[in-house]
This record gives sequence, C-alpha cells and structure tokens, in this order.
Amino acid sequence: MNLIENLNWRYATKKMNGTPVEQSKVDQIVEAARLAPTSSGLHPFKIIEVSNPELKKLIQPIAFGQSQITDASHLLIFAAYDEYTTERVDAVFAQQEVERNLPKGFANDYKNNLLAQFQSQSKEQQFDHAARQSYIAFGLAIAAAAELRVDATPMEGFNNAELDQLLGLNELGLRSVTILALGYRDADNDWLVNLKKVRIPKSDFVISKN
Amino acid sequence: MNLIENLNWRYATKKMNGTPVEQSKVDQIVEAARLAPTSSGLHPFKIIEVSNPELKKLIQPIAFGQSQITDASHLLIFAAYDEYTTERVDAVFAQQEVERNLPKGFANDYKNNLLAQFQSQSKEQQFDHAARQSYIAFGLAIAAAAELRVDATPMEGFNNAELDQLLGLNELGLRSVTILALGYRDADNDWLVNLKKVRIPKSDFVISKN
Repeated sequence: MNLIENLNWRYATKKMNGTPVEQSKVDQIVEAARLAPTSSGLHPFKIIEVSNPELKKLIQPIAFGQSQITDASHLLIFAAYDEYTTERVDAVFAQQEVERNLPKGFANDYKNNLLAQFQSQSKEQQFDHAARQSYIAFGLAIAAAAELRVDATPMEGFNNAELDQLLGLNELGLRSVTILALGYRDADNDWLVNLKKVRIPKSDFVISKN
Repeated sequence: MNLIENLNWRYATKKMNGTPVEQSKVDQIVEAARLAPTSSGLHPFKIIEVSNPELKKLIQPIAFGQSQITDASHLLIFAAYDEYTTERVDAVFAQQEVERNLPKGFANDYKNNLLAQFQSQSKEQQFDHAARQSYIAFGLAIAAAAELRVDATPMEGFNNAELDQLLGLNELGLRSVTILALGYRDADNDWLVNLKKVRIPKSDFVISKN
C-alpha cells in the first residue's frame, strides 16, 4: 500500500540541506491540504506559505532557533480561524449552493443549528474546534510530501502569539497552529535519519470490540 | 499524484450498503493511523475498533441516529488520553531507548522539559493537545481508506460523554474524539454521492509570503 510505504519512508527531518523544493511539489502538498475533509465542510483554516529568506530568519527565533526553519525552502504555516462568525459560516453554505446548483437556503436548518452550537461556545472553544480541523489537513500535507519524497518536519514548537504578531494573523482573524517545514534531508548530519521509527505497538493501540 | 486522486475519489459517505469491509483492509487503515507522526512521538490516543452489531446499535442513538453507524461494518473510534501523566510520557521514552538501543536517560532533559510543560497545563489543555494529535492520524486513516477504495465517513456528531460511558473509556484514561465509519457506499440512495466536492478556492486558502 502506497500510503503505508510513504509513511514508513518519512521521518521528522532534523537537518535539511538547503536544496529548494520545486514549487510544483509545494503546490501539490498544499492541494492535498485543501482537499481535506473538515467538520461541515467549513475548512476553518488557511496556509501561510513562506519561502522568503528574510522572513524565515525572523521566524527562526520564534521557533526556538530550530535549523529547519531556515534550511527548509518552504514553511507551510497552518493558521485556524479565531472564531466561527456568522459571516464565515454563511459564506461556506452560499458557496455550496452556487457550486452545486442548489436552491438558496437549502440547508438553512442545518446551518442555523450549527451557528447556534458555535454561539453557545466560547471564542477559545471555537478556535480549538477550528484548530483540530487543521490537523486533518496537516496530516494529509505530511502524507503528500512523503509521496513526493519531499522531506517535511511537522512543528508545534514555536511561540504562537509571536508568530501571529509577526505575520499579522490576528488582523486576519487567524491564529497559528502548526508549521510544516519542507526541504530535503541532510542525511550526513541528521542524527535522527538512521534511527528506527518507534511507534506504539498495534496491541496497545487498538482496543477491539468485534 | 495518488493521494490527490484518492482524496478526490472519497466523500463523506451518507448511506452505506452494509457490505462488510475485509479485515485486512481495516488493518491497513489502522496501520496508517499507527504510523502517524505525533508531538514528541507521544501518540496519545487509541482506536476502539467496533464491528459487533449489537454494540453498533447501542452507539447509534448516541450518534443522533445516523445510519452509517449501523450500515458501516466497522467503526474506528479515536480516543485521546485525558491527560499526560508522568507514567505515560516515561513509557514512550523508555520504549525509544529500548528500540533504538540508546543509553538509559539519553533524552532526560528533553523529557523533563516536556513534563514540566504539561504539568503547567490544566487537564483539559492536556486532553486538547492529545486530541489534536489524534486528528493527524484520523486524516491518515481517511487517506488510507480512500486508497483502498473503502468508503469512510468522518464523524464528530455524537455525544462524547455518553460514548465514553458506554465503552468504559474514562476508566482507561481516554475520551472519545472522532469516529470513522467504514463500509461501502449505497450509491443509489446516497444524496451526496453525485454532488460536486466543494472546497475553499486555493486563492482564499493560501497566503503567499514568497
């Protein structure tokens, strides 16, 4: 199975060699994230794609100096909606109506229930729900990179508030969640490259109720 | 690219036909989830695999009567750690030491920092972090099912506390997060099967800083 083979190939690359990833490959990785399923199709997150070297240098201290930030050619910064506004939810349903040729208001009951549910939540709970959705796409972007034999480092280790400020994300109603650094491994200088992939054994992972 | 083709093939199946998914395929879908990268390799979640028809019937009202619960042959219930205990974190590092032939305590500084970080968080924050990790695996399981041409419905629409109680998850230190229902589409009776896949346009999805 390709996906399993690809997931076994990949690892959280610690040292990249600076070779740039072809833009066509970056585009395919982004496309996999775009196709991710999300709760009610809301897709409540965006990707900030950074290849500008000066900007990567500014991000590096915010990510505790990790070398992948500047050795990677591209950073995909996943940033989720800070809340579900009525406007944002309305826009998704309106787009579905247009693209699917459905009557206006076809799913109003469903939409209104959804809005009522979000409105009963705190802004932090709404953000948390949006952030979770972005992890589905994050996983798919990781799988896409592996299929293309592009190395990728999934990163949570950075100061989110500082990155939000640097990129002006709050003004866009977004908050950073994760970074996927894309590049090519420097196998001679990466301490992790030859270490065995360690995962929870299947017997501990699955509880069978068959 | 296979992954993109597979993601375009899949959709959130609304009506399944009852045909059972071969266990070998379920096993591969679970394997993709097992191989998911997670924060510090902690893999803080499990899958409860349910094919027992009586149990699915008990789950159905908890999932608001959705037909996929009983028409799917297998439910993969993703359940995250309710907190990061020292014991749980220690076990992950101990396993890495054994499997990678590393000296005992090789990463103690890193581990202790991690533990201090979790200990500064509320139990709810720890669960939230664990739950986010499970969405990476959830995404990969969705991609695996699509590659195998198994239909899958990603579901968040159920009463988590009731499901936890039914399955005795709290006693295991787990809380349910998502369900992936696996089966085969009933194309003649699924209102969604022929509707266009709607996603955020790339121009709205990506903010380029190149």
